[in-house]
Amino acid sequence: MKKVGVILSGCGVRDGSEIHEAVLTLLAIGRSGAKAVCLAPDMEVNEVNHLTMQETGEKRNVLVEAARIARGDISDVKDVNAAELDALILPGGFGAAKNLCSFAYDGPQGSVQPDVLRLVKEMALAKKPICAICIAPSVLALALGRDLAPQLTIGTDTETAEAINATGSKHVPCPVSEFVVDREHKIVSTPAYMLAGSIAEAAVGIEKAVQETIKLIS
Amino acid sequence: MKKVGVILSGCGVRDGSEIHEAVLTLLAIGRSGAKAVCLAPDMEVNEVNHLTMQETGEKRNVLVEAARIARGDISDVKDVNAAELDALILPGGFGAAKNLCSFAYDGPQGSVQPDVLRLVKEMALAKKPICAICIAPSVLALALGRDLAPQLTIGTDTETAEAINATGSKHVPCPVSEFVVDREHKIVSTPAYMLAGSIAEAAVGIEKAVQETIKLIS
Repeated sequence: MKKVGVILSGCGVRDGSEIHEAVLTLLAIGRSGAKAVCLAPDMEVNEVNHLTMQETGEKRNVLVEAARIARGDISDVKDVNAAELDALILPGGFGAAKNLCSFAYDGPQGSVQPDVLRLVKEMALAKKPICAICIAPSVLALALGRDLAPQLTIGTDTETAEAINATGSKHVPCPVSEFVVDREHKIVSTPAYMLAGSIAEAAVGIEKAVQETIKLIS
Repeated sequence: MKKVGVILSGCGVRDGSEIHEAVLTLLAIGRSGAKAVCLAPDMEVNEVNHLTMQETGEKRNVLVEAARIARGDISDVKDVNAAELDALILPGGFGAAKNLCSFAYDGPQGSVQPDVLRLVKEMALAKKPICAICIAPSVLALALGRDLAPQLTIGTDTETAEAINATGSKHVPCPVSEFVVDREHKIVSTPAYMLAGSIAEAAVGIEKAVQETIKLIS
């Protein structure tokens, strides 16, 4: 059975993984007959109250919170390497741009969380497919932009697209129902909630992108 | 557009809503062309660490945590009445049996959270469809068992089924891919993670149950 790593960044759109995108990713992996391997970095981040959308001043742990989405079946990303996976998927949510990397704060000058950076680079070097959803292409842009200049999409937002381009990556505009595939580097991306007005809309592009990612497994 | 209330009980299978079930419910509602109206009670409950599966000794607020699943678009269940909804759905997770009611602690002698009890009774009185997923039929059993003796399923677990029957409700065994419908009372239920071994398996019954619930709207 094909094993697809899913890097989660917490549990909740404002300080972690966008929950719908994460669950739709797990659903699409499961429906494709592959096995999802949930991963997250072990790190403390600022908690956001999702009713008020304000930071609370408290901290939450990304791995512990991501375990909620994974029903407890999750590993620290530092303990997994590319040889154990056939593909890797990064769902979106602010956690992708704030926890997995610092794109939300530092734009194209941002850095990637070290364990995530190591795994993404290993996957790219092994020519194993990587998929990034919503704002998560920012992680790939920072990790791989300079070396590989991958084609990526975050949808149609001009400012974010320019920041992606400034990493050396090449942004390609894309509607919510579609995905962009860089066949040379086996990198797939789809806008999801960067553009989606509803969960049903987000689901269309995510399902297609995950299916394409699994197809790219050699 | 038909409005379907979704009562969440937090965010995470051990102390709140089972996240996959909640998101699959929202997806099925959206794909049916209806609008989901997310609701949760405003109450403090014991937090469970989902990596260790142990209680932490800290508290979390059900409404604030459920807002993560709802992307912030959620109301206190006490502020909503049956006249504003066409149907009502309760996803599962331990939160359904620990927060929305006390079935997990008190079995058939349990009580239902007052705001949830009021809304469930209003919906039943108005003959509007109600759907309960996984262990959430326990809420309906405690709220409606004595008065209506509804047919409900939690799958095949004998002990839980006996506790459901002891409320005056009538438990009907059901496989994960199907649902039970009590046409007289317009009550739908499906086992989901009471039986499911995977998200893809849970999705089948949930999708069917949500579609049936929306079909029952008169």
